[in-house]
Amino acid sequence: MSLIVQKFGGSSVADAERVFNVARIVTETYDKGNDVVVVVSAQGDTTDELIAKGQEINPNASKRERDMLVAAGEQISISLLAMAIEKLGYPVVSLLGWQAGFQTSSAYTSARIRRVQPNRIRKELDKKRIVIVAGFQGLSKYDDITTLGRGGSDTSAVAIAAAMHADLCQIYTDVEGVYTADPRKVKNARKLKDISYDEMLELATMGAQVLNNRSVEMAKKYNIELEVLSSLVKAPGTIVKEKSRMEKMLISGVAKDTEVARLSVIGIPDEPGLAFKLFSKLSAKNINVDIILQSIGHDNKKDISFTVSADRAEEAKNVLADYVENIGAKEIVCNTEVAKISIVGAGMESHAGVATKMFEALYDAQINIQMIATSEIKVSVLINKKDADRAVTAIHDKFFEE
Amino acid sequence: MSLIVQKFGGSSVADAERVFNVARIVTETYDKGNDVVVVVSAQGDTTDELIAKGQEINPNASKRERDMLVAAGEQISISLLAMAIEKLGYPVVSLLGWQAGFQTSSAYTSARIRRVQPNRIRKELDKKRIVIVAGFQGLSKYDDITTLGRGGSDTSAVAIAAAMHADLCQIYTDVEGVYTADPRKVKNARKLKDISYDEMLELATMGAQVLNNRSVEMAKKYNIELEVLSSLVKAPGTIVKEKSRMEKMLISGVAKDTEVARLSVIGIPDEPGLAFKLFSKLSAKNINVDIILQSIGHDNKKDISFTVSADRAEEAKNVLADYVENIGAKEIVCNTEVAKISIVGAGMESHAGVATKMFEALYDAQINIQMIATSEIKVSVLINKKDADRAVTAIHDKFFEE
Repeated sequence: MSLIVQKFGGSSVADAERVFNVARIVTETYDKGNDVVVVVSAQGDTTDELIAKGQEINPNASKRERDMLVAAGEQISISLLAMAIEKLGYPVVSLLGWQAGFQTSSAYTSARIRRVQPNRIRKELDKKRIVIVAGFQGLSKYDDITTLGRGGSDTSAVAIAAAMHADLCQIYTDVEGVYTADPRKVKNARKLKDISYDEMLELATMGAQVLNNRSVEMAKKYNIELEVLSSLVKAPGTIVKEKSRMEKMLISGVAKDTEVARLSVIGIPDEPGLAFKLFSKLSAKNINVDIILQSIGHDNKKDISFTVSADRAEEAKNVLADYVENIGAKEIVCNTEVAKISIVGAGMESHAGVATKMFEALYDAQINIQMIATSEIKVSVLINKKDADRAVTAIHDKFFEE
Repeated sequence: MSLIVQKFGGSSVADAERVFNVARIVTETYDKGNDVVVVVSAQGDTTDELIAKGQEINPNASKRERDMLVAAGEQISISLLAMAIEKLGYPVVSLLGWQAGFQTSSAYTSARIRRVQPNRIRKELDKKRIVIVAGFQGLSKYDDITTLGRGGSDTSAVAIAAAMHADLCQIYTDVEGVYTADPRKVKNARKLKDISYDEMLELATMGAQVLNNRSVEMAKKYNIELEVLSSLVKAPGTIVKEKSRMEKMLISGVAKDTEVARLSVIGIPDEPGLAFKLFSKLSAKNINVDIILQSIGHDNKKDISFTVSADRAEEAKNVLADYVENIGAKEIVCNTEVAKISIVGAGMESHAGVATKMFEALYDAQINIQMIATSEIKVSVLINKKDADRAVTAIHDKFFEE
C-alpha cells in the first residue's frame, strides 16, 4: 500500500462533468489499495472572478482581505469534489488549508509554507477516507487565511507529499507531461519519460508553465518523485526526479517566455559601482533581473540592458527614474516586444557546442539574437517577440530531428 | 462609548453599491465613538447558487460537505464589506465564524451555537478596528465548518451581542421595522415603535419573516435589546425588548404563513394511544406539528388533522404511511392550498373577545375557517390559501381602523 498525493488544477475541475472525471481518477487510485490525498485548486475562472469582485469594490484592498476573499474558491471546489466522490460511493472528507495543517508566513497573497502538520489528514486516512485538501491556502501565525500566490496548489501538493513521506506526488494538468517543446506550437515535440529536478526548474523559469517553480524546488529538497500527467488522457506522464534516465540526451526541451521586457539604461558614465547601484535598487523592490548585457558606448559612456518579467517592467522603469537622472545617464528605454527562448538539458554540462548549435538554428531561420545568457544546463536568448514561435520550432527540429 | 452589533442580510450586500451603503452605515456608527461588530450573510443569491452547484453534483451529499460548500458564501461577503470599509479609510478586519469564536453542535446544516468565545473580536476592537463577522457559520468540536440553517445570521448577531454584553443589536433588513401586517399587502399597516420578545416570537412563528425565531429566543434569554430597521431607508426601526410600551394595544400584528400544509389521517379507530403514537412518530423525525384538530367521525372512527410546514409535508406523509396501514386507518390526505393567519398581542391575555372579533372579520369577508388554534397571546386560523391576503386585510382593518 502506498501513499499517493494527487493534485488537480482549476481547469480539471471546471464543471460538474470534469469534477466527476477527477473523482473517477481518485477512486481508481484508492481502489488499488492506496491512501490518497487530493489537492485541488479553485474551479476554472473562480479565482479570477473573485479577484474581479474585489477590484470592483476596492482596487487597493489590503492583501489580508484579498486572501480571505480568494480562498473561498478552493472551499467550493473541495466540497464539490468530495460530493462527487460520495456520489460514487466512497468515504471522503474535504479539508481547508488550515484544517489540513498548512502553516504559512504572513506574506498575504504570496505566503510561504512554513510547515505542514498533517495530524488531521493522517487521522482521516486511518479511517480509510479519501482526503481532499484545498490547495493554494494556509494559515498565518495570527490565525488568518493566507494564499500562496499563483500556482501555489502545486506547492501545496508537494508540501503534503514531503510532510507525509508520500511515495508519489502526481500533478494532473491539461497536458500529458513535459515536452521537448510546446506541443501546440511544435508538431514534432516529444513527451519526456523523465526529467531531472534541475532541468525542470530551468524549464519552469524559462516559461514552460507545466509546474510551479517553488513546487519543483521543494520536491528537489525533499526528494519527492513527481509525475506530470493529463487528467483527460489516460497515459503515463513525465517523471521528475533527482537523476533523469535520459541525461545522456543533449537537451531536454525548448521553452519560450513572452512575458518578458527588456530595459536599457543608455549613456551611463563609465564609473565603478554604478551598475551595482542599478541592480541593488531593483532588488530592493524584489524585481528579479534575468539576462544582463553591458555594452561599451562612446565618450566613456556605457549602456546596460537587462530583462525583467513584463508585469514588473513599468515599476522597474519608475524605480530607476531618479537613478538615471542622478548619475547623469541619458535615458531608460523599455521594449516589451521581445521573447526569451531557452534550451535546457543536463547533458550540456558534458557536451560542448550546444549553444553554437542553437545559434546556428536561429541563423538558418534568419532570426536576430539581441541578448544571450547561459548556465551549466541552459542557454537563453532574447529575440523579437514576433519570431518566437518560429525560433522554437527551428531550435527544436535542429536538436530533435537528428 | 457603546458596543453595537449590526447585522445585515444577503439582500443588503447583494452588489457593490449596496456593500458601500452598508459600509457607510457601519462607519457612521463607528464615527459616533462606538465599538462596532458587524455580522453579514452571504450576498443575494450566493447561498442558493452554491446549493444548486452542489445539487448538480450530488443531491444526496453529506450535510458536512454541504456546510463546507455553503460557508464559502459569507467568506466572500465579509471580505468584500471589509474592502469597502478600507476604501472609506477605516480600520477593519473580517473574521470567519471559527475565527470569531463560534462553537456549535455537530448538527451540520442546522447546527446550534454552543458558545461564542469572542477573544479575537475583543482583541480587534481593542485595536480600534471595525470587526466584520461571517454570520450563519461556526465550528464543530471536530474542527469542521458548520452552518446554523436559514436565518442563522440573526442568531449569530444576537449570540455575539450576548457573549460580549453589547448595548444594542441592530438587525438591518429590507423592511423598516415590525408592522401590524405586511405593508406590501395591507395599505393601512403601521410600524410598531416597540414589541415584546414574546409577541415577536409569536409573529415570527406565525410567518412574519422579519426575524429568525431562534434569534428572538436568544435575545429574550440574555435580555438583548434588538432593533429591526431598514438598511435602505434612514428611519428608526422597531425595538424588541422585554416589556413593550404598547402592551395596552390589543394586538400587535397580523401575520400570514403560506408555507404550511394540512395533513388529515382519515378513519382512525377510536382506541386510546393512537393519537399519541401518530405525533411521536413525527417528533422522532423532528417534524413540528402546529394546529391540531380531532373530529369524531362515525362507526367509532375519528379523523385527525394537523398542520406542518410545507417543506416537510411529503416527508410527514411518508413517515406515517406504515402507521396508517398498521392501525387500519383509511387514508392520509395532504392539502397544501392552505394558509395560516394569526393575530398576536400581549393585550389578549386581559381582553376577552379578541378571537371573536377576528372570526367576525373573516365572516364579514365570507372566508371559511378550517382550523383554529389559540394561546395566551395569539389566535391562528387555517384558511384557503387563495383567501390569505384578503383575510389579512380584513382582520387588520377590523382591529386597527377603529
